[in-house]
This record gives sequence, C-alpha cells and structure tokens, in this order.
Amino acid sequence: MATIFQEGLQQKQKTATSTMRALVFRGPNQIKIEHVSIPKPGPGEALIRVTLTTICGTDLHILKGEYAVKPGLIIGHEPVGTIHQLGVGVSGYTIGERVLVGAITPCGQCNYCLGGDWSQCGGAMGGWKFGNTINGAQAEYLLVPNAQANLAKIPDDLRDEQVVLLADIASTGISAAESADLQIGDTVAIFAQGPIGLCATAGAKLKGASLIIAVESDPVRAQMAKRMGADVVLNFENTDVISEIKRLTDGKGVDVAVEALGTQGTFENALRALRAGGTLSSLGVYSGKLSVPLEPIDAGLGDHKIVTTLCPGGKERMRRLMELVRHGRLDLTPLLTHTFSLDQITVAYKLFGERRDGVIKVAIKP
Amino acid sequence: MATIFQEGLQQKQKTATSTMRALVFRGPNQIKIEHVSIPKPGPGEALIRVTLTTICGTDLHILKGEYAVKPGLIIGHEPVGTIHQLGVGVSGYTIGERVLVGAITPCGQCNYCLGGDWSQCGGAMGGWKFGNTINGAQAEYLLVPNAQANLAKIPDDLRDEQVVLLADIASTGISAAESADLQIGDTVAIFAQGPIGLCATAGAKLKGASLIIAVESDPVRAQMAKRMGADVVLNFENTDVISEIKRLTDGKGVDVAVEALGTQGTFENALRALRAGGTLSSLGVYSGKLSVPLEPIDAGLGDHKIVTTLCPGGKERMRRLMELVRHGRLDLTPLLTHTFSLDQITVAYKLFGERRDGVIKVAIKP
Amino acid sequence: MATIFQEGLQQKQKTATSTMRALVFRGPNQIKIEHVSIPKPGPGEALIRVTLTTICGTDLHILKGEYAVKPGLIIGHEPVGTIHQLGVGVSGYTIGERVLVGAITPCGQCNYCLGGDWSQCGGAMGGWKFGNTINGAQAEYLLVPNAQANLAKIPDDLRDEQVVLLADIASTGISAAESADLQIGDTVAIFAQGPIGLCATAGAKLKGASLIIAVESDPVRAQMAKRMGADVVLNFENTDVISEIKRLTDGKGVDVAVEALGTQGTFENALRALRAGGTLSSLGVYSGKLSVPLEPIDAGLGDHKIVTTLCPGGKERMRRLMELVRHGRLDLTPLLTHTFSLDQITVAYKLFGERRDGVIKVAIKP
Amino acid sequence: MATIFQEGLQQKQKTATSTMRALVFRGPNQIKIEHVSIPKPGPGEALIRVTLTTICGTDLHILKGEYAVKPGLIIGHEPVGTIHQLGVGVSGYTIGERVLVGAITPCGQCNYCLGGDWSQCGGAMGGWKFGNTINGAQAEYLLVPNAQANLAKIPDDLRDEQVVLLADIASTGISAAESADLQIGDTVAIFAQGPIGLCATAGAKLKGASLIIAVESDPVRAQMAKRMGADVVLNFENTDVISEIKRLTDGKGVDVAVEALGTQGTFENALRALRAGGTLSSLGVYSGKLSVPLEPIDAGLGDHKIVTTLCPGGKERMRRLMELVRHGRLDLTPLLTHTFSLDQITVAYKLFGERRDGVIKVAIKP
Repeated sequence: MATIFQEGLQQKQKTATSTMRALVFRGPNQIKIEHVSIPKPGPGEALIRVTLTTICGTDLHILKGEYAVKPGLIIGHEPVGTIHQLGVGVSGYTIGERVLVGAITPCGQCNYCLGGDWSQCGGAMGGWKFGNTINGAQAEYLLVPNAQANLAKIPDDLRDEQVVLLADIASTGISAAESADLQIGDTVAIFAQGPIGLCATAGAKLKGASLIIAVESDPVRAQMAKRMGADVVLNFENTDVISEIKRLTDGKGVDVAVEALGTQGTFENALRALRAGGTLSSLGVYSGKLSVPLEPIDAGLGDHKIVTTLCPGGKERMRRLMELVRHGRLDLTPLLTHTFSLDQITVAYKLFGERRDGVIKVAIKP
Repeated sequence: MATIFQEGLQQKQKTATSTMRALVFRGPNQIKIEHVSIPKPGPGEALIRVTLTTICGTDLHILKGEYAVKPGLIIGHEPVGTIHQLGVGVSGYTIGERVLVGAITPCGQCNYCLGGDWSQCGGAMGGWKFGNTINGAQAEYLLVPNAQANLAKIPDDLRDEQVVLLADIASTGISAAESADLQIGDTVAIFAQGPIGLCATAGAKLKGASLIIAVESDPVRAQMAKRMGADVVLNFENTDVISEIKRLTDGKGVDVAVEALGTQGTFENALRALRAGGTLSSLGVYSGKLSVPLEPIDAGLGDHKIVTTLCPGGKERMRRLMELVRHGRLDLTPLLTHTFSLDQITVAYKLFGERRDGVIKVAIKP
Repeated sequence: MATIFQEGLQQKQKTATSTMRALVFRGPNQIKIEHVSIPKPGPGEALIRVTLTTICGTDLHILKGEYAVKPGLIIGHEPVGTIHQLGVGVSGYTIGERVLVGAITPCGQCNYCLGGDWSQCGGAMGGWKFGNTINGAQAEYLLVPNAQANLAKIPDDLRDEQVVLLADIASTGISAAESADLQIGDTVAIFAQGPIGLCATAGAKLKGASLIIAVESDPVRAQMAKRMGADVVLNFENTDVISEIKRLTDGKGVDVAVEALGTQGTFENALRALRAGGTLSSLGVYSGKLSVPLEPIDAGLGDHKIVTTLCPGGKERMRRLMELVRHGRLDLTPLLTHTFSLDQITVAYKLFGERRDGVIKVAIKP
Repeated sequence: MATIFQEGLQQKQKTATSTMRALVFRGPNQIKIEHVSIPKPGPGEALIRVTLTTICGTDLHILKGEYAVKPGLIIGHEPVGTIHQLGVGVSGYTIGERVLVGAITPCGQCNYCLGGDWSQCGGAMGGWKFGNTINGAQAEYLLVPNAQANLAKIPDDLRDEQVVLLADIASTGISAAESADLQIGDTVAIFAQGPIGLCATAGAKLKGASLIIAVESDPVRAQMAKRMGADVVLNFENTDVISEIKRLTDGKGVDVAVEALGTQGTFENALRALRAGGTLSSLGVYSGKLSVPLEPIDAGLGDHKIVTTLCPGGKERMRRLMELVRHGRLDLTPLLTHTFSLDQITVAYKLFGERRDGVIKVAIKP
C-alpha cells in the first residue's frame, strides 16, 4: 500500500516537474539525451509513458543525415507504454492500461485511410509520424496522435518484450508475404536477413510458403534465419545465389522474392530469382539510383509484379500481430539481443550501428 | 445585397430560436413533423443544415414497424447540406461548404474500420447510425458523427439533385458488382429493379459486364432499367425467367446474380440463374426465413459464392461516387421522379409507399 | 538383370491377360471385387498401375445410394501409381514414373478451365470424373483422362503414404482457408474434424490463423485436431459452442468459420460463430434442405460471405501440395490409421463406414 | 448448289496443290510473300484458313531485327479464320466454323497454365507462339496448337472486322485496367495512344474509371483516344503533363497509370503521375535500360505497385471479349483504318511502319 502510494506520488511529482528525458536529434551525427517538456494531449490525442522501445535501422539513417528530419526532433517510432493522460474525445481507455502503438499512426479519417491506404495517411508516407514529422518514442513520454485509432491494448499474458518488435519490423516484415499475396505452397527467396528480412522470413512461413530460401552472409543472422523459418540460407559471398535458387526450384525460379535491404544488387537479384509471373515484394528503402534489368522481366512481357510496402499500422494491425504472439505463432524475443536504459541509448546506437556483438535489435527501457 | 443580408438575418434568427422541424417516428405508422431542439456538435461532430434528402425503402419498413427503432427518433439517412457548425477537432472544413454525407457513417478508428469493415463500424451494422441509432436526415439540421471521416465536399459543378442518391442507393447498388468482384465480360442478372436494383444495373454496366439481364414486372421500372444499362428486361409475370437466362447465356447461367429485393423467391431465382462457380451478390434485407435450394448449388460442390453487402459509406466513398457523376459515368437524376417540401413529407411517404404515379425516388427539400 | 527381365515379362503377361481386379459398384449396398478388362489409353490419356489408394466419405454415400452413380462403375478417386502406358499426345513422361493424380481431373482446355474454374470443368462438378462419371481408382489400373494436365510426378524423397491423401482430402480441406481468403492473424472455427475437417485445420494453420478452434465430440478426432494445429477443441456435446467461441474472441466471433460436415446444424453454427463481415467457408455436401438463419447474418446487412469449394485438382495443385509435404509443412500420415489390400477392400469399407477402431483414413494397396 | 459444289472443288484443289502464300521473315528488313507447304494438323492441332489478320507493332520490331525470330518463320499473330482440318483429339468443332484465335495460345495443361499463368505457358513468354516460335497468321492457312484450348467460335452476328483486333491489342490493352485491379471511380492516366494504348483507354472506361487522361501528341490518335473513352488528352509536346495530371486530380495524382509504349520517358512519367499507393500497369516492351526514379515511389515507401502484363489468350478470353463487342460495350472497328490483300502486305507494312495516312491498324485479307 505504501509502495503504491509512493509510486503515485513520484508520478505526480514527475508530472509536476513537467520535463522528461528524451533523445533529441540536433543534426547529422548529433543526438543526445535532453530534458524537454512533457507534452499535453489535445483533442483526440493521448500521452503514454514509454516502458519499452527500440532503435530502428531508419534511426541510423536519420543519425547519419541520410534521411532528413528537422533538428530538435525526438526520434524513435516503436513504443510500448502505459496510458498516462487522454485527450478530449478518446474513449474506451483508462489511465494505466498497457498499450502498443505502431510505428505508423494512421488517422483513419482522411481520404487515404478511408480508401484503405492507411500508411499513406493524408498523402505520401503520411502515416509515419513518430520521429519523422512529430516527436518520437525514444523518450519517457510520447504523445500519440489519433489515439482512438492507435492505442492497442496489450493482453495481460504478454510481456513488453514480446510485443515491442511488432510496432515496426514485424509489421513490415510480415507484410512482404501479404502484399505479394503469397499463396500456400509458393516458393520464396528473401534477400538480406537483417531485422526486417528475418521477420519477412517468419511471415513467409506464417502464410504457407513451401520452401523458404534466405540470402545472408552474416553467420549469426543466417542461423537466426533458420530459427525464423528459412529452409535454406545461401551465403552470397561463396554461392552463385541465382543459380542455386534456380536449382532448388527445378530451374523455374521462385514465386515470390522479397527485397529487404534497399540496394541495387539485392533488388536486381530478387528480380532474377523470380519465375515468369512471379512477384517481387520490396521492403527496402532505396537511395541513389534504382535500375530494372530487362532480361529477368522479359522486357516487360513476363507478367511480373513489383510491390512496395510501408509498414502497416493502426491498433487493429497491432492487435492481430499480438494475437499471433499469444497463440505461439510468432516469437520475436530471440531478436532482442541487447537491453539498455534510456540513459545509455547513445551507446546502444553505436553498438547497433556497428553491428557488434551479434546484435540484431536492442531494447531500450526508459 | 439586401436579399443576402436578409437571408443571413433569417438564418441567425432561426438558429436563435434553437428549434427545427424534423420528421419524428413515434411508433408504427406514426410519423409527423415536430419542432425539436437543434443539436450542438460535440468533439469530432458537425452540424449541417440539410438542403436535400430523400426517403428510403428502409424508412418504410421502420414506419410499418418491420424494423425496430426507438420512438422519438428522427429518421432518414440520405443528407445533402451545408456545414453550419463544427465541433472541436474537425479540421479542413469551413462554415457554409456544401457536403454530402453517406447513409453509413464509419468512425474510421475502431478495429472494424481499421480492418476495412467500415460498414460494420464497432460491430454488426454499426456503421448505419442516421435514423437508426441516432437522429437522422429528414430534418432541417443534422448532427454528423465522426465528421472528419464523413463530410464529403460537393464539387461546385454538381447540383444537390445529382448527388443525393449517392448517399445510399447508388453506394449500395454499385457495391453489388464490386462485392461480387465482377470481371470485364461477365454476364449478370439483377433481380428486382427498385431504386437499389436500378443502381445495381448501373453498377454492373460501370464495372464492365457484357450482358445485363434485369428482372422486373413494373413497366416504368423496366423502362428505367434499360436506361440504367440493362440489355434485356425479363418480366417474371409472363416469362420463365430462369429458362430465358439460361438461353441467353448458352445454357450456362450468369457469372453474377444480384438479389435486390429481399425475398425467398428472388434469392432462390438468383441462385438458380448462376453458372457453376458463379456469385450471388445479395443486397436485399430479408425477413422471416431464408432457405437455400441445394440443386442450384450442386449440394455445396458448385464453387458458388454468396456475398452480402451493407451500403459502403465514408467521405472517400462519397467523393469517388461524385467523381463518377462529374465525369458523366453515372446520372441518377431520372430516378428522382418527385419533389416535396419537408412539410409535405408525410404525403411523400404515402406516395412512395404506395408506389403511385411511377414514383421511383422522392426528393425532400427542408 | 534377370530380375528386371522377369519383371518386364510379368508385366507383359499381366497386360496380356488384359484383366484386372477392381471394386465395382452394382447398386446400393452392392460393391465387390470383379475382374474387368484393363483399359487402353486413347489420345491424351494415360494408364497407370495403382500402387496406393484410399476410401473417401463420398464413396460411402455412393455405396448407400445417397449419391447416384451408374451401376457397373469402378469407384474411388484418390490414386497414386506408376505410369503404365501413355496415349498419343501425352509428352514429358516416361513409363514407370511414379505419379499422384488428383481426385478432380480438369481438362485445362474448356471455357470453365480457361476461366480458372478447373473443378467445374465443362460445367457443374465436371472436374470430378473418377468413380463418378468414369471408372475410378479402387482397381489395379486406372485410365487418366487429360493426362497431360493431371499426372503429377512424385519426388523421389516422398513415399506413396505421404502423398495419397493430397489427392482429395488435403486439397479440399486446405482450400477452406484459401477460398475464405484467410488473412494472417484471423481467428477460425472449424466445425467437424473428420478427414476433411482435420485437413481444414491444417490448412488454417498453414495460412496463418492466429487462433484455431475445432468443434468435435469424438475424442480420437479431437486429439488429432490438436495435432493438426487446433489451439482449442470444443465438444459440442457438453459445451455451448457459440458462447464459447464468442468468449474466446472477445465477444466478436471468428473471422472465418469452416463447415466440414454438410448438415443444417453445423452450417447454422458456423454462421452463428462469425463476426460481422466474416466468411463461412463451406466444404460439406448437403442433403435435404438447407436454411439460413437471418439473425447471424443481420438480415443480409452483415457483410457476410458464404463460399463453397469443390476439391481443387490438376497436376500443379498436386505438385504444390507435395512441396508442402517435402518441406515439412504438412504431414498427413497420422491420418492413415489402417491399411488393407485391394482384396480386403470390402472389409475396409465396413470398418471405415462404421468408424471403428479409431479409423480416420484407410490405405488400400492393390 | 452448283456454286457450293464449285467452292468445294476449289477448296479440294487448293488443298491438293498443298501450297499456300505466306509472309516469310528471311532476316532483318527481309520479308516477302512465298509459297510454302500447307501444314497438316497433328494430335490436338487444327488447321484454319485465315480470312482476316493484321500487322502488329511487334511485327515491325521483328522486321527491323529488334526482336529476334529465326529466319524462315511465317510471322503474324492475330488470326480470324474458318476451321479447315482438325487433328486427332480435338472435339466439339466442325469444319467450316468461323473462329477467332488469340495471339497467345496457352496449352492449358502445363504447370504454368494450371496455376493461372496462361500467357507464361511452359515458361517465360511461352504462350506467345504464333510468329515467334511457330509459324504465324500472315498466310492463307495457319496451324493452331492446342486447338481445344484456342479455337473460339465467332457468333454469327459478328463480322471478322469486329473481332480481329481482339486477338491481341484489345486483349492486351484491356488487361491494363484488369491487372491494375482498377476500381470503380479510380482516376487513370494512359501514356501513349497507339493501338494498345487506345485499347487501354477503352478498357479503363469499361472497368469504371471516373476520369481518364490520355497522353498523346499525334492529333489523329488524340481524337481517337476521346472516341475510345478519354475525358482529356494531354499533348506532351506543349503541356507539362505531370503538373496537369496533378492539377486534374486535386494535387494527388492518379490511382492507376498505364504505360503503353515501352520507353524510359513514358515509364518514368507514369510513375510520377501516380498518387501514393497507386499502381503502374505496364504494357510496353522495353529495350536498352529501364531505371526507376526514386522520388515518385518515395524511395520504396509509397506502397506503389508495378505490374506487367503479356496479352491474355485462350478461347475463353476471346469469347468474353467477343461478348463485349456483341453487346455494344466495345467497338474497335474505327481503329481498322486501312485494308490490304495478303499480296499487298509489304505495302501495308511500309504504311504501318511509317505511320502514314493516319493509319492505326491495317486489315489483311488473305
């Protein structure tokens, strides 16, 4: 009882001080923990106290100045937390409830959302707000826009660690098979087994692929790929990947190829791995130039498809992914290889950026 | 100038009085115009001044007590109007803008909506609110819930009469071909050519059907069916409809059959009209019992589909339908056969209910 | 060398004798092994020597006279065998190759097949030929129509027992999730866990269902349901199945319900188990009358779908299913609970028909 | 009677002579009418007497040596004719029946066809046989492979001129909207209005596009585009096409863009014309290099799709397209601007290749 009272007191005091620690982007290669004001939720918004978050490959791009966000922004987009305050018009929630919020937070009410293009909320990439156009999750508190559409309650039987990766990498990775409309019995090749590629492997397995070929040279990731569902892992450094994929598919090529890195080489190889009529499901973020070799698409006559997907978000998406975890269909905890406190987050960035110590994903506990 | 000033004055005075005329349902066969308070929009809501509305077949069912709504409710669900007042949190609109609001008003933010089941917002039939669970459109003013998701601006080049039928019957009718996933070149039979059936005919034409067979005995509606796109109209009173459909399709049956009445007979005939592998797209509201004859579905081995659809709503749906009207793809004004003022609405109900004077739809001007 | 010579000799002699043993249907409750002529393949046909087959629930219906086939017909439709003779125009195969042939043998060249309705080849149920309109598989030899489209080579690493159930029950059962377009994370309820229902359970798992609820009272089958992927098995004899399904899905109902028996009760319960907007995937063969309760489909306004599916066939379907087995995605051998020789087949029919000894499927070795 | 007798006699004599006139490709820029043997249909084949054919843009590429076929081949792939002789195993047809055969002739029985990839029959581009891998249609007689799957009977009420363009350009053009899964109310931009682009315009109209923007500088084709269904035609020589498309779509971009030429410029502009989440439906045959600008696809995060389509073929496709013509949904006769006899075909090639005299398509009568 005393403890509960004190916790309540501390919380009140914390709110009273009205500042929180947060990772602020100040320009290329400049991030640091700062004390900033705790925001107040306006109509339709909610404030959550972040209990677990992580660092995404995209955050590294931001840090390096490869993806531009405005200096002064708090970055990060994968939050698990508890509801701290609710704005006017948000109903059906109570203070203290544990929630998962997707990296993509659609409003649900614009023409794009009402047309089913939730990730493109309001226009190109508009669903991605956290750590991009509004303050993000690498902080003690996070303001959630369109909270009614984005607060997904976490079932009591799931721990934070079991759900934090659903916010972005699982939702993105699994969408590869979904966007490709992968059919039961399809063969799949997945190029690159970073966090997103590993989840794409899990997604292909979930959706009924018969043969899953992962392409990866890093031995730690290759091993994890098998754990996530790959039947075969090809090391592109010592294997003629395309020949081997053709051999494994009776000379035909795969039904679905997933690009999970964002380079010309993987994109091209994904196309070359496809059978006539196959689908390239692209998850990578490309830079520079992208060219399409004509021979693998039969100069445009091969009935190929190329589909790109931005991470699906919204509370229903999060709910469905959590149900997969609950019923033992998906376990991503092996990917959370390291844990840091928010104060140590710059150390975590360094480790993650340099891919040291077999890191796949880091958990950050504010 | 003077006139405009006076109009402004009148409007102010009207608001000042704080009451409006509205058609109130008081129990089976009891509807009348009453003076009721003009509502005020809460967070996320909008108040519109209704400039045009209509009466739906469903309203007749409510009037007869066949579909239960609570006494005291204002009925009607097909509003065109101007924005009168905006609640907190509704943005991107200005007072006085002309808007169309669908009969179905999804919130866009619940699990159903975020899963793409907008008409089942919050649960079974939950998208249908106006004149069902909240006050409706047969009134001078209408409170629109989740206004951000439901106010569709009307392009300047479209008159109220051109868009009012999009709110319900066009959205419902056209959805028959959409839900059936009708393919270019499909043959279609549409059972009953009331307002919804006529729109289903227009929808089948829009989506690329090769042969459209309408089934209707009323000569006025039969003629209108041809205007909406039917190639052939079969009068079930003097024709063996199924034999004739088979003859017209080389003995095969149609690819898609639309049920647009809600009776056992039309449902059964729609099934009997189908080819193996065909789809029955059902729009009707059934009462009593519904039974499935086994022979036309080959005892369950015929690869048939039965799909039911509740009117799609939301502002993006309305926008898309208005674009069809704007570009000359759809003209429903011939269906608006009669016009009444709001004060005369009970006369309009009588005419519409008795199907007199070749009535198809009536326009109500508050 | 001598052995090979002798085998060749025996084969020649067997052909020379020109007769084979086969189970012939002579009328209701009259089946027996008879000696009949070995057929010769015409253009486009192939003769296979059957090495393994099985008995289907449908064969029991034929035996009881509940499904009419003409007396004198050899029944059975699930053949594994080796190619014995090839008709003119069949290419790419060699004598002696092991092949699996689906229960459904589409021609691939009629309007139905070229429109993607392979099971309805040439018209209603036309793809089902074996033991229905032409001689079937419960014999030493089997004539395969449209052999080019229907002989699926068996990979060397798969035994006959691993693939024989793919011909019908696996292809049918798995199609339930496919026809319902089951999405990753969907909840599913499967009514009845006979051979087809068990495969529907496996199919729902394969396609990414989050929660699979099987409904079955037989303890042997209930246990097998768990082995095939069910998370929960409800015994309808002591459980209020619908309430329990609602409870397990937060009051919502399942996204997909599978009917795998063909009775009014299971059909109705499947509908009642659905959420608004859900899909009933029907595999059962119905007799008598089928009625649709209106409340669970919200009188036609619930955006529900009912889809029926006849077993998909053709060599590509068989190839894909075999790939699932090869890569460990599907193991149906536990369902093959008993084995009999062709001479003992009437004993097998009796055991299978009476569901004795925990029988699920019987293997027949000619 | 006498006449019929004489016709029969002439036909017999013609067959007796056993040679026919045909356009033979002898190498780049070398085509001429030669006398070659009339082929005899083997099992599954049919011989048709060609009554009308045409020249395709692809034939021009072959002539220029830009698309390699082996010297000695008869080219052309758009045949209308009468059945002259049927090979073993082809049933349901009689000598003398009028038939349309698609440019693409799937076998219907290989793994690709049985998986629904009919145009990729047997592997990459394998459905395209006529004038590519086997002798083609610019001849007096044509051997049709897999005749059972490819002879589409022409209804008596349709003339040869009404159906000849369905074999290739209509089937290809219309597939643009189909492959893009164009929805009712979508906006579309179609880049280039050659024969295929014009049919893509007709297809977008057929499938329910609300606004169709064609891009073309040739005034004859621009005018024809309007006749085929374009609402607006933009001349890229004097218009900033992308700005104008954005302006016409409220700054958003189109839902579907069709590439109908096969150049880097049109491909790029098609991408730039798209809204976030939009689909590029590609019909062009590309040469050289193809690059994807990253800005219009939001570096891979814009949920865009690129789909390529090879002309759909097979008799069911032809039947469906003919039904559209029969019921007045499609009239391509305005595109047949010129007619030549087979003897004059090289003159026709010259006119067509130089795009003189407002030529769109030429009819060739053997």
